[in-house]
Amino acid sequence: MASKPTILITNDDGIHAPGLRKLIAVVKPLGNIIVIASDGPRSGMAHAVTMESPIRVKLITDEENYKEYITSGTPVDNVKLGKHKICEKLPDLILSGINHGSNASINIIYSGTMGAALEGAIDNIPSIGFSLMDYNADADFSHVDDAILTITKKVLDEGLPEGVCLNVNIPKMNGTPLKGIKVCRQADGRWVEEFEERRDPHGRSYFWLAGSFENGDPRDDTDEKALALNYVSVVPSHTDFTAHRHIVNMDFNL
Amino acid sequence: MASKPTILITNDDGIHAPGLRKLIAVVKPLGNIIVIASDGPRSGMAHAVTMESPIRVKLITDEENYKEYITSGTPVDNVKLGKHKICEKLPDLILSGINHGSNASINIIYSGTMGAALEGAIDNIPSIGFSLMDYNADADFSHVDDAILTITKKVLDEGLPEGVCLNVNIPKMNGTPLKGIKVCRQADGRWVEEFEERRDPHGRSYFWLAGSFENGDPRDDTDEKALALNYVSVVPSHTDFTAHRHIVNMDFNL
Repeated sequence: MASKPTILITNDDGIHAPGLRKLIAVVKPLGNIIVIASDGPRSGMAHAVTMESPIRVKLITDEENYKEYITSGTPVDNVKLGKHKICEKLPDLILSGINHGSNASINIIYSGTMGAALEGAIDNIPSIGFSLMDYNADADFSHVDDAILTITKKVLDEGLPEGVCLNVNIPKMNGTPLKGIKVCRQADGRWVEEFEERRDPHGRSYFWLAGSFENGDPRDDTDEKALALNYVSVVPSHTDFTAHRHIVNMDFNL
Repeated sequence: MASKPTILITNDDGIHAPGLRKLIAVVKPLGNIIVIASDGPRSGMAHAVTMESPIRVKLITDEENYKEYITSGTPVDNVKLGKHKICEKLPDLILSGINHGSNASINIIYSGTMGAALEGAIDNIPSIGFSLMDYNADADFSHVDDAILTITKKVLDEGLPEGVCLNVNIPKMNGTPLKGIKVCRQADGRWVEEFEERRDPHGRSYFWLAGSFENGDPRDDTDEKALALNYVSVVPSHTDFTAHRHIVNMDFNL
């Protein structure tokens, strides 16, 4: 009998997040699980790596086919630690999430959850980021099991194209069954931001980032459209930022 | 006479970095300059935004057509503050850098310098990230003026395609003149990492991220190839992570 695949699990909401606990519970039977998660929230950390300070790592659970490590790093640090320090060999699969909140559309670029999945893709390790369209800490995850198992099992069996990971978003629980899973493109949306200015007790100002997401993309084949129709969205995502079609029309003469 | 364009300048090495000072010196005659930079290094911060804490902002230089703000935020925070709080209207141009070190190939994904430029692209503000292939704090920037002025003036005059910013890398000073400017694709390279493990005075271990870059991309039209031949590389870059050609071959049945 073949040995169980090694599955590295991380997230960006920290080791105590209910979304991480749910993901672990759903996929635990599928492999040898190594959880490497941050000691607190790392939302909005994108692809950040820790370069100005060292990283602490502690093994906190050590059972057969199941280990948990807590770190002071970012989600991408956690994947790098897993790849190069903690796992005996490169993991067979990297799962990140379940994020509390959307990583559809432009949210991928701010997302620590997707930073971790993209970091796996750089080394051609099949990697999936899961997110639920619900920012609440006590979000309802009761409808996500089938979608996570379906996608995870297929990727474990068949792998993913070189350099590609999956950005999976799951509609918020609304009482009706999910309609299915749609493979889509990233919608061209953006955040319209405001900064809330406040005064500290010493009279000095400080700013909180706030804002709202706006999807101005009318196309039918986007993640936002699929989610609005109660489908799970899957966007095959990679780390090539090149806007290829603009290369030929651009020139600069020194 | 038309009023001067507003140019927002930031970086990821912090407000005191020589690379930022050089960029300011080169482009100062071109516009009304608003510098918004972090109070210290933010290398490797990628597209991170500050969500868990508030941001401090202080105006430290206030001259005609020239202002400098120092912040406690990330490079992307700085652009967001500029767009939505500090500038009276959206800036006409965003410049980021000059970074001390390469942002060619996969380095774009870890880069705070390019995080800032990509954040401009999200709002269709012409944006350019400049980087020098020299990590030294006292790097030689004496050969960069012409390339920066050529690219900046053309972008000021003609703009950039919607959603596209430029990732500009400049070879390290090697005593020979730059050969020119090449518009390229992002090379498919990656970092091969190691973590250096050390012990603190209390006997507890901690890790420093280290490693070396490897370009395994043999193609002739990449940024790494152009830089190796002593050309300035320009990669038109965008925020669509979708691996479009893989959409049609992928399906999941719930």
